[in-house]
Amino acid sequence: MKYGVTRDYVIGLEFVTGTGDLVRVGRRTAKGVVGYDLVGLLVGSEGTLGIITEITVKLRPLRDPERTIAGYFPDLVSAGRAVTAVAAAGLTPSALELVDRTCLQAVDDWKNMGLSTEADTVLLGRIDTPGAQGDAEAALMEQVFSDSGAGFAVVSSDPQEAELLFAARRLAYPALERLGDVLTEDVCVPKSQVAPVLAEIQAIAARHDTVIANIAHAGDGNLHPLLITQPGDAAARERAQLAFHEIIDVALAAGGTVTGEHGVGLLKMDGLHAELSAPVVELHRAIKSAMDPAGILNPGKVFRAHG
Amino acid sequence: MKYGVTRDYVIGLEFVTGTGDLVRVGRRTAKGVVGYDLVGLLVGSEGTLGIITEITVKLRPLRDPERTIAGYFPDLVSAGRAVTAVAAAGLTPSALELVDRTCLQAVDDWKNMGLSTEADTVLLGRIDTPGAQGDAEAALMEQVFSDSGAGFAVVSSDPQEAELLFAARRLAYPALERLGDVLTEDVCVPKSQVAPVLAEIQAIAARHDTVIANIAHAGDGNLHPLLITQPGDAAARERAQLAFHEIIDVALAAGGTVTGEHGVGLLKMDGLHAELSAPVVELHRAIKSAMDPAGILNPGKVFRAHG
Repeated sequence: MKYGVTRDYVIGLEFVTGTGDLVRVGRRTAKGVVGYDLVGLLVGSEGTLGIITEITVKLRPLRDPERTIAGYFPDLVSAGRAVTAVAAAGLTPSALELVDRTCLQAVDDWKNMGLSTEADTVLLGRIDTPGAQGDAEAALMEQVFSDSGAGFAVVSSDPQEAELLFAARRLAYPALERLGDVLTEDVCVPKSQVAPVLAEIQAIAARHDTVIANIAHAGDGNLHPLLITQPGDAAARERAQLAFHEIIDVALAAGGTVTGEHGVGLLKMDGLHAELSAPVVELHRAIKSAMDPAGILNPGKVFRAHG
Repeated sequence: MKYGVTRDYVIGLEFVTGTGDLVRVGRRTAKGVVGYDLVGLLVGSEGTLGIITEITVKLRPLRDPERTIAGYFPDLVSAGRAVTAVAAAGLTPSALELVDRTCLQAVDDWKNMGLSTEADTVLLGRIDTPGAQGDAEAALMEQVFSDSGAGFAVVSSDPQEAELLFAARRLAYPALERLGDVLTEDVCVPKSQVAPVLAEIQAIAARHDTVIANIAHAGDGNLHPLLITQPGDAAARERAQLAFHEIIDVALAAGGTVTGEHGVGLLKMDGLHAELSAPVVELHRAIKSAMDPAGILNPGKVFRAHG
């Protein structure tokens, strides 16, 4: 969360254009503003503007050790409120992850980690500010968790315990896949909207009789509701699809985006057209035509070619 | 230096397109990957792709207090070596600025600050890491300055003194303008190339009998050689132009870019065509045509419209 996303580190590219040229764009320097930012245009274009053959990234020095702060919340929404409160307290954690009861239960059923008996929803924060100030920030986050309704909040003094908690976070997705087919959402909302959007997601799950588990890169407002259906249950699949689209509508109404990190492909194409205005889609079409005049680069993906 | 450049903070834009639409692109969220990065494409396009009418920026918490580390070097090139050594030591200063003898002298002649008697070239570093680790990093930078040849290096314990040094840095440009016409360079080179490129700039100054003062956002490798000529001296102006273009050639040969932050406009148009390959310029033309089909947005700037 503190250090941004991969695209922030891509400073140069080599790629094959739609007309068959092998070109190099970007730079090797810390700064540079010569011409259009074609690196940024290519990153996230999902193969529709060129085929990337080499990537130049900038590096950071190795990070400082982190402290882990765990908060055990009685419900999803109070955990969401804590996320907003962490930002409001001026904290910039290196990570702030959310794992809900359904995920904890699925991990426990698989790995017997004993997490689901202790919390409905877990927030896992990390602080890598060095020294006494880092200790103070970790203590502040613990306090913010408590003030936001956590039944239990602690700065972990045990690296193995902290690692176990993050292992549970990482195991959530494969654990859920053991339960059925998983349809993965990827909406991202303003930090102030995390709690109300999580509440809406719960209401959508109830309304459509669909199991929705939640993991989230919560500190970024990047939510991953995971809609679970049983293979072969077409009616359940249809209900999940309705829920999926309602979550998108809720995220957009909250000032969010349909995809925080996974991209559009085919799955979020309707979402893209819901999020972007018609003239902005026209700009996409114009740029696509300009860079891929023959229409041979990953055709039919990301946005509809015609209105 | 530590926190990147303004473009890294622009996450949303409203702009008027070349076809007269008022559009909104980007996001209000921490992350988002829906469609092409039109925000990044517009930032730095110098008015050639749209007229920006509103900008959404992300904010950071207020920064921690900084320590200032000053290094007084006997020559430009040893200061340049110190810049590379700071990066190699794993330090990420919040600022690392360079001011050379010509600038110090010009500031002294104007403001009587007494700087030019103490150093040929000054490096000013800042560290905002909190607490004891920040103190250790500042001490390490002081040591790196000394090891790189500084005759005097110190972590300033006096905020007023530190402010005075940065005031001299800020006054350098207006002080030089009192000496004549100033032609401002803006090349940016890899951090490893700062010292050799500064040596080449000195050689170019001597070869073309041109006064070249140097200020630099040195930690980013962003150099601002300032070529000074007397108004009306056409021969000197011509020599300065030759020097200007040779500096660009040197920067490109070192793996750098012709413009680190100022942009292209008309002044660096030749430089852009030297830096970018013909197919990359063609991509610029294609994108320009796509987004400004009537050619009405700041026409004739940044790159030549035809090959």
